[in-house]
Amino acid sequence: MLIGKKISVGYFLNMIKWDVIAIFCYASLSGALDHFSFLKSITIPLAVSALIGTLLSLLLAFRTAQSYERWWEARIVWGAIVNDSRTLIRQLLHFLPPDDRKSDIVTDFAVRQSVWCFALADNLRRLPYSPHVAEYAIDHAYTDQHLPNQLLTVHAEKLALVANAHALDPIRQTQLDSTLARLTDAMGKCERIKNTVFPRSYSMLLHFLIYVLMTILPFGLDDQNPFVEVVMVTLVPVLLIAIEKTAIVLQDPFENRPTDTPMTTLSINIEKNLMEMAGEPAPERESATIDYYQL
Amino acid sequence: MLIGKKISVGYFLNMIKWDVIAIFCYASLSGALDHFSFLKSITIPLAVSALIGTLLSLLLAFRTAQSYERWWEARIVWGAIVNDSRTLIRQLLHFLPPDDRKSDIVTDFAVRQSVWCFALADNLRRLPYSPHVAEYAIDHAYTDQHLPNQLLTVHAEKLALVANAHALDPIRQTQLDSTLARLTDAMGKCERIKNTVFPRSYSMLLHFLIYVLMTILPFGLDDQNPFVEVVMVTLVPVLLIAIEKTAIVLQDPFENRPTDTPMTTLSINIEKNLMEMAGEPAPERESATIDYYQL
Amino acid sequence: MLIGKKISVGYFLNMIKWDVIAIFCYASLSGALDHFSFLKSITIPLAVSALIGTLLSLLLAFRTAQSYERWWEARIVWGAIVNDSRTLIRQLLHFLPPDDRKSDIVTDFAVRQSVWCFALADNLRRLPYSPHVAEYAIDHAYTDQHLPNQLLTVHAEKLALVANAHALDPIRQTQLDSTLARLTDAMGKCERIKNTVFPRSYSMLLHFLIYVLMTILPFGLDDQNPFVEVVMVTLVPVLLIAIEKTAIVLQDPFENRPTDTPMTTLSINIEKNLMEMAGEPAPERESATIDYYQL
Amino acid sequence: MLIGKKISVGYFLNMIKWDVIAIFCYASLSGALDHFSFLKSITIPLAVSALIGTLLSLLLAFRTAQSYERWWEARIVWGAIVNDSRTLIRQLLHFLPPDDRKSDIVTDFAVRQSVWCFALADNLRRLPYSPHVAEYAIDHAYTDQHLPNQLLTVHAEKLALVANAHALDPIRQTQLDSTLARLTDAMGKCERIKNTVFPRSYSMLLHFLIYVLMTILPFGLDDQNPFVEVVMVTLVPVLLIAIEKTAIVLQDPFENRPTDTPMTTLSINIEKNLMEMAGEPAPERESATIDYYQL
Amino acid sequence: MLIGKKISVGYFLNMIKWDVIAIFCYASLSGALDHFSFLKSITIPLAVSALIGTLLSLLLAFRTAQSYERWWEARIVWGAIVNDSRTLIRQLLHFLPPDDRKSDIVTDFAVRQSVWCFALADNLRRLPYSPHVAEYAIDHAYTDQHLPNQLLTVHAEKLALVANAHALDPIRQTQLDSTLARLTDAMGKCERIKNTVFPRSYSMLLHFLIYVLMTILPFGLDDQNPFVEVVMVTLVPVLLIAIEKTAIVLQDPFENRPTDTPMTTLSINIEKNLMEMAGEPAPERESATIDYYQL
Repeated sequence: MLIGKKISVGYFLNMIKWDVIAIFCYASLSGALDHFSFLKSITIPLAVSALIGTLLSLLLAFRTAQSYERWWEARIVWGAIVNDSRTLIRQLLHFLPPDDRKSDIVTDFAVRQSVWCFALADNLRRLPYSPHVAEYAIDHAYTDQHLPNQLLTVHAEKLALVANAHALDPIRQTQLDSTLARLTDAMGKCERIKNTVFPRSYSMLLHFLIYVLMTILPFGLDDQNPFVEVVMVTLVPVLLIAIEKTAIVLQDPFENRPTDTPMTTLSINIEKNLMEMAGEPAPERESATIDYYQL
Repeated sequence: MLIGKKISVGYFLNMIKWDVIAIFCYASLSGALDHFSFLKSITIPLAVSALIGTLLSLLLAFRTAQSYERWWEARIVWGAIVNDSRTLIRQLLHFLPPDDRKSDIVTDFAVRQSVWCFALADNLRRLPYSPHVAEYAIDHAYTDQHLPNQLLTVHAEKLALVANAHALDPIRQTQLDSTLARLTDAMGKCERIKNTVFPRSYSMLLHFLIYVLMTILPFGLDDQNPFVEVVMVTLVPVLLIAIEKTAIVLQDPFENRPTDTPMTTLSINIEKNLMEMAGEPAPERESATIDYYQL
Repeated sequence: MLIGKKISVGYFLNMIKWDVIAIFCYASLSGALDHFSFLKSITIPLAVSALIGTLLSLLLAFRTAQSYERWWEARIVWGAIVNDSRTLIRQLLHFLPPDDRKSDIVTDFAVRQSVWCFALADNLRRLPYSPHVAEYAIDHAYTDQHLPNQLLTVHAEKLALVANAHALDPIRQTQLDSTLARLTDAMGKCERIKNTVFPRSYSMLLHFLIYVLMTILPFGLDDQNPFVEVVMVTLVPVLLIAIEKTAIVLQDPFENRPTDTPMTTLSINIEKNLMEMAGEPAPERESATIDYYQL
Repeated sequence: MLIGKKISVGYFLNMIKWDVIAIFCYASLSGALDHFSFLKSITIPLAVSALIGTLLSLLLAFRTAQSYERWWEARIVWGAIVNDSRTLIRQLLHFLPPDDRKSDIVTDFAVRQSVWCFALADNLRRLPYSPHVAEYAIDHAYTDQHLPNQLLTVHAEKLALVANAHALDPIRQTQLDSTLARLTDAMGKCERIKNTVFPRSYSMLLHFLIYVLMTILPFGLDDQNPFVEVVMVTLVPVLLIAIEKTAIVLQDPFENRPTDTPMTTLSINIEKNLMEMAGEPAPERESATIDYYQL
Repeated sequence: MLIGKKISVGYFLNMIKWDVIAIFCYASLSGALDHFSFLKSITIPLAVSALIGTLLSLLLAFRTAQSYERWWEARIVWGAIVNDSRTLIRQLLHFLPPDDRKSDIVTDFAVRQSVWCFALADNLRRLPYSPHVAEYAIDHAYTDQHLPNQLLTVHAEKLALVANAHALDPIRQTQLDSTLARLTDAMGKCERIKNTVFPRSYSMLLHFLIYVLMTILPFGLDDQNPFVEVVMVTLVPVLLIAIEKTAIVLQDPFENRPTDTPMTTLSINIEKNLMEMAGEPAPERESATIDYYQL
């Protein structure tokens, strides 16, 4: 599903370019002032910079780890959606009695489950629903504000109908219900990751520490060649900011960015699997994966 | 549910202002003494400060990680409450036979489940119950000390009534019971996070290490410009204390502070979802989210 | 349940006082020897101390994290005991048919479940059983070596009796059995934490590293004021030992120490909840929380 | 299953040889330039290199930990496949009534479950199916694109047949279905690990940091013997790259490399166990473990 | 089960003695060469050693954490075996109808479950089966290659017999089957830990880094007293190797070493508990815990 190509270096550089320019100006300025003005007499030992640098490195490592975990959890949840979608249809194939209606019921659920995946992806990305999702909702007059939740309710209602028409005993019905409960959980987990912002106070602290380090670093490089000093004073904060930006990009895995979870591709694959299981042809869908869409 | 606005910088600065003032005074004093008195001859190598600084950084990183985990666990538990509330009503829609009483029963459970969410939030924040919760409790004469626990017991009793009136077979009943057990677990997990204080001995150690570092740091900056020395001796401990305060704010996610879990907003959303599923209009609630309430 | 008061500083200082005295003597002695004897010519660069210090800091951070996890797991297990105790009684209320015996059966289970909590707490602390537990065991002639395990077996036997008297169908019976299985798990987890000592080899290594650091540190502080040297050589190892002691205190959460899991308080609360659910008055119990019992 | 022999050092050296050569050339060149040209006057304090080195070490430690976790998760998933394969056959032995067809049904499932393991392994390694898997698929006319998914569907269909022929009641059927759901989960988890590449931006950052460190390191070793300088400037980046390569090798555990998960060996063992349980002789299979295949 | 005595220091020293001797010789030699030969002019700044030392410390901390996790997971799995063994017998007491055969059936399962524990322990340690296990296998003609797996299959077959003799309905049967599935999982988890060696490439890297550090360290201690140099150059690598050895000892928790999981003691305790529950006397077993067997 995911292809191992490089995320374009340009995309990344573009993201941090303003920071780089600002830091370079600051470094040049402080380099100049430091050599030609009264600030010349001020020296701050590199050991203090190192202490703040260690603290900052540990906090960045922590932030990196947390962002990675959110990103990885998003993949795990969508992996579970793949599994439970397959399980739902397999259970219907397994549990429904082999009569005339079986094939129709299975296809009906397979289509609705595929639409659910696409609708959830659009919902999480705060995009308008894809054409075929919107069409499906209009055709069936599904008008709830939270379409994916409504589709799961329709799953439940249809299962109730099938059960009440005596085609399904309570035991198999509750087994199917457990699968619906897991899909509800997956939907809720995605919403939790989407809606929980990383604690602002940490982000602020990290920024503040980077600024502090950037401010005191030149005073520890006093005796150096001015060119070297400017390069160093630009390089160290840029590296720290690049690490932080990488973490920021990972931490919101449903933001319709080149690096988010490939939900459209996954939904297309789920649709293919489910249609294959239901014995129906899968509709051709164009993957939304544009050029740089390959983390 | 959560909006990505900034937590007001003022709120945070207000929280640490006394520490900053105390440290600044101490730094100025020690800076003065260090230059004008018998303490002048004392020098402590920066390497010792660096060693203590590394130790402190690691313990702060550990503390940060633990606080984040408590905060994140609180979000996970409330995410599970969202999911299991939806699942409870969906299971009722799925399992109850399509007779006259079905709609009334579903609405009754949806209302009680919504009230349970609000009551749990108030309980965790140690606030008096919200008006509509208090009203509901009085209307139904629910007087137990632990209202959320009683509401779950009422859920169970009502399910028993429905089952005994032969509308629900034991299999579906136990499936619903499992959902109640998960809600009981979520309630207990919130209480565990609320009632378990972070080990005091660690907090004491961290404070003590910060004071030690603050005390020995000036003796390593002897040869510096006094102004620089005062700034450095103020800055380093303030940064450490700011990190610790950030951790302290996160570690108690149910404290009715601007940064806690947005339980009221989540409860309002749960109510909306459940009412939509039950086919009833959701009452208008004013979100408690005041201005600075947006971590 | 837990109150946020301070663990008395005295208790903690008392715990490490002998280490502090020993280290102070060693530091004074080495300070004296270092200045007045042939050892004066020996210098070990502070960078070597820093290397060993970093290694030690990382191992201490690891140890701290593991101890915290054991402590936190103990709380989680007791949180699960709270939840599953409530769930057990709620399931009985939910599943038993509304006849004459229902109230008696529920009360019988609620009392036994409360006693089980107290008995498990006493067992884990290796204390003789509390008076009311011992009395209950004698009254019912429960003489197994492992009383909590026997109480769970009695739960199972009584459930079998209730089921065989046709008051409970197999489906509800297995649902209750799952709750018993979770309680068995919780009991086993407590015993695992209690009986698994932290690997001795790590503790030995940590001690050895602290001694090594203490030994080489004075040789890196040669040029310093003797007073400063003694203070530094005492301070650094004492800080390290204080961190280790804090970890040691946390890592055994069932040791009848002021900082262990508040199992008695939790059991009293469980008893109150269960009695409220069974509609019976809860007996007055005196909390064992003595003065310093408030981590 | 896994034998504790050494992965050939040659294999590893071969993997990083080009990096080593490139770095050695760069180091020699920079060493020469640094001593004989205008660059001689440039000095960058080692403390800056140390700061970047600490940052890099933390990111490498993070990367190492994540790679290990992916590798370990892959083992856990395949361990679960072993367990659930045994459980599936044991449940059939347990649940099927002791009639004439029982033995045939169990053997049929045991063979299909073994083939599923081999097919999944081939699929994950993107290899053509092993001869006996391909033969099995042709014999039974299984032509779906996703053979392992189809085999699970066939499991479900056969179970439905067995159940509908009244040999299996719904309760035992759903218990078997849960085992199929767990196998579906394991399959999906393998695919998730296979298809999720490690975030490119982190890899890029790590490389960039290594290049930066390699570039500034010589300027901090100015006063050294040129031979020593070249050795140091080669050694440090090579060590860092060796650590990164080790992580890269671990992070993709299904790549048909000497160090991946021993899926063929595990499948052979599963086949042996299942055949023993079904009372059939296991076919002789040659393990694919070639000489260097022993991480 | 585990006693808090010290693992004999001798055992540990014995394990690392050859490394210590080799390092001491190397240190003496390099110390001599460094002072009396052409190598005297070579100096490698301590900052480079510190950089490599930091990297090494982080990798050792990672390795320590992973080894601890394997060791702890082994304890968790055996803790689950204790719990599920008790649960299995309790479920039989709970579910079997109170007729004449009940007591015989329970005792039969309790004995087989106890033997399973001992057989699994012997299997994991690659030891011949204990006398009473071997005897039990011969008495019952159990000849499968994988005895513990066969015993679980016998459990399942006996349960099928009990069920088919109408003493057990399908619902209770599947509940017992779930317990068997958990025991199967526990067995598979032990085998996974046993058979998965820690990635060789990491071990090789760690060794290589220790050798590198040992080689460059003397060149940074040039100006020191030769005696001090030899002590330092011996001490630092010995500490690192001691940490690594400690990790190696922990990482294989089923190796029949003094520090492995106390499976024999646990099995004896399980047997006692099960026999108490079945109302039978437990046979006297001698614990295999020899003198130094007390991590």
